[in-house]
Amino acid sequence: MSIIVQKFGGSSVADAERLFRVAKIVTDTYSAGNSVVVVVSAQGDTTDDLIAKAAEISQNPSKRELDVLLSAGEQISMSLLAMAIEKMGFPVISLTGWQVGVQTDASHSCSKIRRIDKERLESELDKRKIVIVAGFQGINRYDDITTLGRGGSDTSAVAIAAALHADLCQIYTDVDGIYTADPRIVKDAKKLDEITYDEMLELANLGANVLHSRSVEMAKKYSVKLEVRSSFENKPGTILKEVVKVERMLIRGVTRDNNTARISLVEIPDVPGIAFKIFSILAKKNINVDIILQSIGRNNTKDISFTVAHDQKDEAIEALREVAELFKAKEITCDDSVAKVSIVGAGIETHPGIAAKMFEALADADINIKMIATSEIKISVLIDRDKAERAVQVIHDAFDF
Amino acid sequence: MSIIVQKFGGSSVADAERLFRVAKIVTDTYSAGNSVVVVVSAQGDTTDDLIAKAAEISQNPSKRELDVLLSAGEQISMSLLAMAIEKMGFPVISLTGWQVGVQTDASHSCSKIRRIDKERLESELDKRKIVIVAGFQGINRYDDITTLGRGGSDTSAVAIAAALHADLCQIYTDVDGIYTADPRIVKDAKKLDEITYDEMLELANLGANVLHSRSVEMAKKYSVKLEVRSSFENKPGTILKEVVKVERMLIRGVTRDNNTARISLVEIPDVPGIAFKIFSILAKKNINVDIILQSIGRNNTKDISFTVAHDQKDEAIEALREVAELFKAKEITCDDSVAKVSIVGAGIETHPGIAAKMFEALADADINIKMIATSEIKISVLIDRDKAERAVQVIHDAFDF
Repeated sequence: MSIIVQKFGGSSVADAERLFRVAKIVTDTYSAGNSVVVVVSAQGDTTDDLIAKAAEISQNPSKRELDVLLSAGEQISMSLLAMAIEKMGFPVISLTGWQVGVQTDASHSCSKIRRIDKERLESELDKRKIVIVAGFQGINRYDDITTLGRGGSDTSAVAIAAALHADLCQIYTDVDGIYTADPRIVKDAKKLDEITYDEMLELANLGANVLHSRSVEMAKKYSVKLEVRSSFENKPGTILKEVVKVERMLIRGVTRDNNTARISLVEIPDVPGIAFKIFSILAKKNINVDIILQSIGRNNTKDISFTVAHDQKDEAIEALREVAELFKAKEITCDDSVAKVSIVGAGIETHPGIAAKMFEALADADINIKMIATSEIKISVLIDRDKAERAVQVIHDAFDF
Repeated sequence: MSIIVQKFGGSSVADAERLFRVAKIVTDTYSAGNSVVVVVSAQGDTTDDLIAKAAEISQNPSKRELDVLLSAGEQISMSLLAMAIEKMGFPVISLTGWQVGVQTDASHSCSKIRRIDKERLESELDKRKIVIVAGFQGINRYDDITTLGRGGSDTSAVAIAAALHADLCQIYTDVDGIYTADPRIVKDAKKLDEITYDEMLELANLGANVLHSRSVEMAKKYSVKLEVRSSFENKPGTILKEVVKVERMLIRGVTRDNNTARISLVEIPDVPGIAFKIFSILAKKNINVDIILQSIGRNNTKDISFTVAHDQKDEAIEALREVAELFKAKEITCDDSVAKVSIVGAGIETHPGIAAKMFEALADADINIKMIATSEIKISVLIDRDKAERAVQVIHDAFDF
């Protein structure tokens, strides 16, 4: 008998019909002899509706009270799913974050899970009950309700799978797996059977919004076997694990991220300490910097360019205005019509020809590269946004998926 | 410094504007130097909406899961009220039933409060915080969420007031106190400054739907000083306590209850055990019998009449059909166009003229009395329903309110 954790997102539990579809998947898994723990998000727009209610009261509610409010959403969806499973004649119980003992740190609205007091969970599984758990929520050491932030339900599912030493943690979503490229852009994109956690982390960070990176990091840390699969079609998805079988395929996928902008400080003095000053200012404002490029000094001046999330560009420019004046930068420029296109794969480190092949594909398509960044398992380039889709296509074509 | 518990019902917290009105009442009480605990119901139609969601899934969901679902309602309203109070610049914290430690028995959907673990409550009050508590909900010894049934938030407020030895428990509602008669029927009905718990219990059971009787019983048991007052007007309401000051006024009020029907078993044998048989059948079906009248035997037969809630009359008749046949009753009749009109007051026991005065008023108005029932502090009569409003008026006129 295996222990299987299944996670369903908000759109999968949005109404009565979908709840019964989920109940069917869950009870089939149970009937096959498995112990099943189900983690659910709030239904459809519930979270947005609750945030709107809060906004009517206050533009700046405390995170503690917002967590109390939002956690009601999963409490609603989990009890409704339990009712659907009851109705189908199966033993079931729903449990909130505090009932499951999802212990988090003391912070609110993006808390980290510290541990799971699995006593209640195991006791219900021992009674052969299907256990429905509210995702996204926990309690801190003061017995206050906390929430885990964006992608929190994925993290809840992985944490519970880790605590129970589950055999598999399935993330049900509206896509049927991880693809070598966005199938809406690349017609012949292929579904991957397997992918390593590290490769998935790079993909998650690069705009493939299937799994939140926190959940993948946790899965890697506790070696939780993860499967991303469709809640609409009953077929195998993509398995995430530490080591995947050796394949012809050197890279796992091509991604595009439009949420980026390039900011440059032009002609600043070529003296020590300037980069430190710039990036510590941005860090203080919680602005994440992605690719950084520093030109070679000339005439005692240099240029520093970096990319930030598109919606943080104005804040970043504002934050740097003072330092730009101080250092008598010639100007601050911002190019916000760019996109980042990346390839990800464990083969990149060991196969030096891959970068060249990617650049060649772009050159052949007459696409200019504005910036380059590499890691052991990814290569990213910054290009004009209006050429991003074509770039993904030509790179995908160049590699033998 | 006094400890004051304030309870606000669903209509008082229905939207942002009303939440701020409640926040004003609460913070004024706090600013006057009091420790304040606020108990809230779910907003407006939230509970009905959640029940409708459940009904889409199952006509017969388990009470455990229904309690999980419904308790989300107070979690929403309490966090929104806390946000409103925060916004006004006061220290505040919201707590669910389990966080407050509202321990109930193991049953679901109409659980009884066993005790309140007041540690968390007292610790927050010691920090001079306004504490918002979710009414209607608790947890049982298995750490499962329970709810208290109809009028549950009133009971929560009284139980918390009892646990904290609060100086006052205020029930804010849409009326400004307890009246000598329904002001919609009797124009010169007067608001009572004070009323005893027992008198209120009779009034509560007789159709004055201001306070649920369970909360009054608990207030009496723990000597909690209760005040019923308006959440829309800032003026004193009606105080409930054990002994009220002696007044000219012998009776507290006149009430009417249309939710009644009289059932009669006509010409049944005048032998022992028949009444027992009839009422044990009804008790088994959970049908509450109110007034009972048995005719004097004649020709070895007698009639038994009794009143039940109007919506239980068909069920009662159905339940009695078999026993009526068994005893060869001539027929079962049902008069469902009746109403019960009552007077309530501690003076009834000690002033024998009161019943006569009530009956005289009815006779003068040509209203026929069909049944009579009395207790130490009340006299009820059954009359034609279409004369009930006039009966309330003439009785109210006859007594010197």
